[in-house]
Formats: sequence, C-alpha cells, structure tokens
Amino acid sequence: MKISEAFPPWDKLTDGDREKLERTAVSRSVPAGTLIYGGEQDCLGLIVVCSGQLRAYILSDEGREITIYRLFEMDVCLLSASCMLNNIQFDIAVEAEKDSTFWVIPPNVYREIMEHSAPLANYTNELMSGRFSEVMWLVEQIMWKSLDSRVAEFLLSESAIEQSTLLHLTHEKIANHLGTAREVVTRMLRYFQSEGLVKLSRGTVELTDPARLTKDFARR
Amino acid sequence: MKISEAFPPWDKLTDGDREKLERTAVSRSVPAGTLIYGGEQDCLGLIVVCSGQLRAYILSDEGREITIYRLFEMDVCLLSASCMLNNIQFDIAVEAEKDSTFWVIPPNVYREIMEHSAPLANYTNELMSGRFSEVMWLVEQIMWKSLDSRVAEFLLSESAIEQSTLLHLTHEKIANHLGTAREVVTRMLRYFQSEGLVKLSRGTVELTDPARLTKDFARR
Repeated sequence: MKISEAFPPWDKLTDGDREKLERTAVSRSVPAGTLIYGGEQDCLGLIVVCSGQLRAYILSDEGREITIYRLFEMDVCLLSASCMLNNIQFDIAVEAEKDSTFWVIPPNVYREIMEHSAPLANYTNELMSGRFSEVMWLVEQIMWKSLDSRVAEFLLSESAIEQSTLLHLTHEKIANHLGTAREVVTRMLRYFQSEGLVKLSRGTVELTDPARLTKDFARR
Repeated sequence: MKISEAFPPWDKLTDGDREKLERTAVSRSVPAGTLIYGGEQDCLGLIVVCSGQLRAYILSDEGREITIYRLFEMDVCLLSASCMLNNIQFDIAVEAEKDSTFWVIPPNVYREIMEHSAPLANYTNELMSGRFSEVMWLVEQIMWKSLDSRVAEFLLSESAIEQSTLLHLTHEKIANHLGTAREVVTRMLRYFQSEGLVKLSRGTVELTDPARLTKDFARR
C-alpha cells in the first residue's frame, strides 16, 4: 500500500508536503512478535499501518504491562513520535501482534509540515483526541469495573477482531493486556469455565457461550 | 485580566482572529464550590483561567469521582469544549475549588479559528498532549502504585499548592480526588496518624512530618 493510500489526511496536504512525505517515509515489514518501538529507543516517528495488527502498551518498572490501544490497517500511531510533541511526558512500547507492514514518517518531517499546515495540525488533534478517549475509557474500566467484566470484555473484543470464538491466547498474554497478574487471570478463566462460558486448553480459550458472557459479565 | 493576557497563544493569532475572540469570549466569576461544567450540560467552551483554582474530574454511574487535572492561573481547559473535538468520547465535570474568574471561549468560534490557523491548531495539540500526559500518569498511579503512596503524594501536592502543612480537606474530598471510598481514606489517614506523619481534626489534615511522608511513602 502506498503512503498516499494509507495516510488518511493525504488529500488535504499541499503537493510540496506530499512530495516531502513520499521522499522521507520508510516502509517496513515485520513478523508477529517484533518489538517495533520501546521506551529506550530514540523517537521512531509516526507509524502508518498498511496491514497486520499492532499493540501499544505501557510498562511498569517491575515489567508489568497494560495495553492502551490496538492499531489496524490505516491506523496511525502518534505516540511513537512523542519527541515531536512538546508536552508528552510518557513513553509507550509498540509490538506487532501479527505479521505487519507499515510506513514510518520521521518525526522532524512530520513536525515541520504540521507547523505550517492547519489541516495536518487538525488531523493530529483528531488522532490525539481518539487515543486520549481510549485511555480515558481505560481509566474508567480500571476504576469502576471489576476484573471479571474486564476479562469478559477483552475476550469478546478479541473474538470480534479474530472473527472466531477460538482464541489463541495464553493467560499471561491476557494479563499483559489488562495490567494484572497471570494467576488472577487464570482464576477468573477457571471460574468462567466452571460456569460453562469458556473452554480452556493449552494456549487457547474458546468462547462456548458468548451471549451469556456478554449479558452476565460484559454489560454491567 | 484581559483575554489577551490570559490566553497563551494570543501573540501568534492574526488581528482578525483576536478581534473575534475578544468579541465572543465571556468573562465569569464564580464562588468556590460552583459546578462550572457537568456531563449533562451542553458543550460549554474553552475555559481560560484568570484567577482561582478549578478541578476537572470524571464521575462513575454510581457517583464516584476521580480528579484528572487541576487548573490554575493561565491554564486552559479544552475538554469542556469536547463537542468541537471530533474524537473525544468522554465527558468531564469542572468545579471551582476556590473563588475563580475565567474567560469562556465559545466552541464554534474556537473551532472556526483552529481550522485555518496552524498556530492555534498546534497550540491545541500541545494542550491536549499535556492533559493526555496527566491522564497517563494517573493510569500508572492507579495500576502500579499502592493507595498509601497515592494518598501520601496527594497530601504533599496539596501542601505544595496551599503552601501550608495545615490542609482543609475532608476524608470524602480526598476519596473523590483519588477515586476511592471514604472509609479507605479514613483507614489510611489513621494509619499515617499512628505513625506520627499527620494529625487529624474535624475537616483538617495536618502534615506533621512531610519529610518522612515523602521518603517512606511518596517516593517508591
């Protein structure tokens, strides 16, 4: 996918700005599992996803993780270019959850264009508002929801993403998405299994009654 | 304070944009305790603080609160104009913690200017990045910090704001800042008191050993 097709605000940019983006953006392909951006690397740049699936998350000092958002085709990750945003004082990590291809726009190029281009600055605002909303949703989840609801909602959203009720997920992975400990997830999944809502096997969780999982756990 | 003095990006705007802001912005003065913006009101507009102190917070369905940021002189609140930000999908409430005066910029006026003005759009980006960072800090606090640290850090930051070790704060108020229950805060404060760190009276908390409160609880 060309950057002109993958980058949503393309049509609103001037010819000069487009030419600059085409000249400087770098295309990359990585296998599932690759750490694309981590706290200790330099500021990478904006990631424009062409195909695959990425996960943005934060890490505690003790190595615990929590997912803050996912990225799919034509999604753009701004926070991997946090050096160009004066007030961003946190760092995220980004990994490929599936084999993925994406463009990387260098942060200085993006910033240069944004400084004179109202359309790009406004697009950046929309992008940041969207991510901000996702994090506020996360705050509400953590603060007001019990963990059984959060595990149920995570399983249902994974099932929607994969379009399958059979999910290839370890308990550890689920824990890393939700920012909790593996043992806590295992206990919750066993409880769901005893209620006939899921079936557990090594490395998989099968949703056997998604309707009841939604009704009794996710929507409350 | 005139809006030209209170609104940080003033110098970067065109004469036409400034004239539009001066003509449409409304000045307000409210006593401490006033709810300036709540989830059910219409989109208010941007709040530009001239004096006083405001608190932005979110509410759960059950009425629990958690502070997401404070606003002081020359701070600008963007999320009280969330209707003009396409992707903001959450609502906050804003109340005056002290007698406060502020300007309100109507959301449609701000949006009109932002659409053609790269400087204002970039200023908005910086504002949103700053708030986003505060919310990410909050996520990290909630996820990885124990409540004793959070209560200690809150008391120390209040003491810095008030420039006093005697804080006029009920346990309920502290609970509403931190998103927890009053009983939990009371238990924690009594523990701090038994350790000689604070002295509790009706409606006040006095920090009797801020150095040790910092060392043993806040910085870990």
